[in-house]
Amino acid sequence: MNRLSLNQWTTRRWSLPQAVDGCARHGIPAIGVWRQQLQECGLARAVKLIADSGLRVSSLCRGGFLTGGEALDDNRRAIDEAAALGAPCLVMVVGGLPGVSPGEPLSPGVSRDLPGARQRVVDAVAELAPYAAERGVRLALEPLHPMYCADRSVLSTLGQALDIAERFPVEQVGVVVDAFHVWWDPQLFSQIARAGARIASYQVCDQLHPLPADVLLGRAMMGDGVIDFRPMTAAVAAAGYTGDIEVEIFNADVWAADPDEVLTTMIERYRRLVI
Amino acid sequence: MNRLSLNQWTTRRWSLPQAVDGCARHGIPAIGVWRQQLQECGLARAVKLIADSGLRVSSLCRGGFLTGGEALDDNRRAIDEAAALGAPCLVMVVGGLPGVSPGEPLSPGVSRDLPGARQRVVDAVAELAPYAAERGVRLALEPLHPMYCADRSVLSTLGQALDIAERFPVEQVGVVVDAFHVWWDPQLFSQIARAGARIASYQVCDQLHPLPADVLLGRAMMGDGVIDFRPMTAAVAAAGYTGDIEVEIFNADVWAADPDEVLTTMIERYRRLVI
Repeated sequence: MNRLSLNQWTTRRWSLPQAVDGCARHGIPAIGVWRQQLQECGLARAVKLIADSGLRVSSLCRGGFLTGGEALDDNRRAIDEAAALGAPCLVMVVGGLPGVSPGEPLSPGVSRDLPGARQRVVDAVAELAPYAAERGVRLALEPLHPMYCADRSVLSTLGQALDIAERFPVEQVGVVVDAFHVWWDPQLFSQIARAGARIASYQVCDQLHPLPADVLLGRAMMGDGVIDFRPMTAAVAAAGYTGDIEVEIFNADVWAADPDEVLTTMIERYRRLVI
Repeated sequence: MNRLSLNQWTTRRWSLPQAVDGCARHGIPAIGVWRQQLQECGLARAVKLIADSGLRVSSLCRGGFLTGGEALDDNRRAIDEAAALGAPCLVMVVGGLPGVSPGEPLSPGVSRDLPGARQRVVDAVAELAPYAAERGVRLALEPLHPMYCADRSVLSTLGQALDIAERFPVEQVGVVVDAFHVWWDPQLFSQIARAGARIASYQVCDQLHPLPADVLLGRAMMGDGVIDFRPMTAAVAAAGYTGDIEVEIFNADVWAADPDEVLTTMIERYRRLVI
């Protein structure tokens, strides 16, 4: 339990104060904060609340959406928030093809230039990394499952994330290993070993089968899907990662359930299936 | 037009005789045959029909589903059929995790051993490749998009398919480059170059956005999705591939449309967007 972190989106109907209280009541020592709930709470109040609770912040979710070319100011604000919270990293979901929006039909002006979008990510990270480093925040590049390549992340594999991260000092830019996004990758274990000290965050949740109509909600409680977590946890540990293990689940049934029951199940599954 | 091939599943409500007739009427010189329609037609009749039409067979779809461990006999029959048809290759969709069925909820006995399933593929290809080679048929390993890893194909990238194919003589085992399945891959162009003479088939269709409720039907007519085909076509040509270019679309609207209209659109889009 000493490395378990509740990513707030798992209990997204809880406000930040409710989630902090929930972690305390269930003995969960860390929390992954989302900017939406942070904004509702207010930054100064959130900082005090978390400090008083004794919880660690494992990450701030999320910055990114860099491929449209207009997000740098908002990412600087996210970095400032991460610094205020003492979050070790800002999780970056880099964005999809310019003009392609999640859930929306394609518009005539959409870009199909995938290499160009990927170059925009490199350029934007180069802009942001020094700003983040000055504030003690590490950018954590998160490869997303290739089914989100068009609309959410042109960063699709751990190897590709490392190719970008390695252009920067290790303390400035790391990567996220999210089981859901990378479990299928034939290079997973070799890339985890390569990642080593670049691993800024390890997130777990399962993949539903069959996928639901909205594939964004294809994430599931560990044990309810197709992923074998233990070998991945062992590989991440062998690579030297000793940080928190966040449980981040986007799932309609989990969101509809009583958050306290979700935490009870999460703790049981984490102990039985993840570590 | 001299390399365009109609994959039969694009006009799946047409019988094989209807599809052969449709190709002739539209000036399409090649056809990718599916075993379902082949069985309905009868092998001997199909062989004569296609020979009389002057059409090339670009592939037989499909063998595979090797991870369950019981498909070898059926694959040998598929190889025999491909040989009788003069198909240059048998497309192999290798199967997902043992016990995970497309569209079905997970059963308690499902396997989550992904490395084990991948090893079964290697073992089964080793069984089948010499049998196919004796009959002049090449096995074409098709990496499928990672969103199908659990239920349809533990072969998820072109690089992974090549890692297996390269264990065998080049004339025995090749790979399929299907734009839909591989467009997102950051290593796509380097792996196409690596593939060279291993490319046994090049298939095109677009990726719908957003994905439909049944992700299997996320394929679309070229131009209706997010894929930029020309750089891929150029890379496949630069790698030395001179074979047919199959259009294979799994899409509810395409299947509901008049197949003759589908062919007219397909030819126009192929000329404008693919070659």
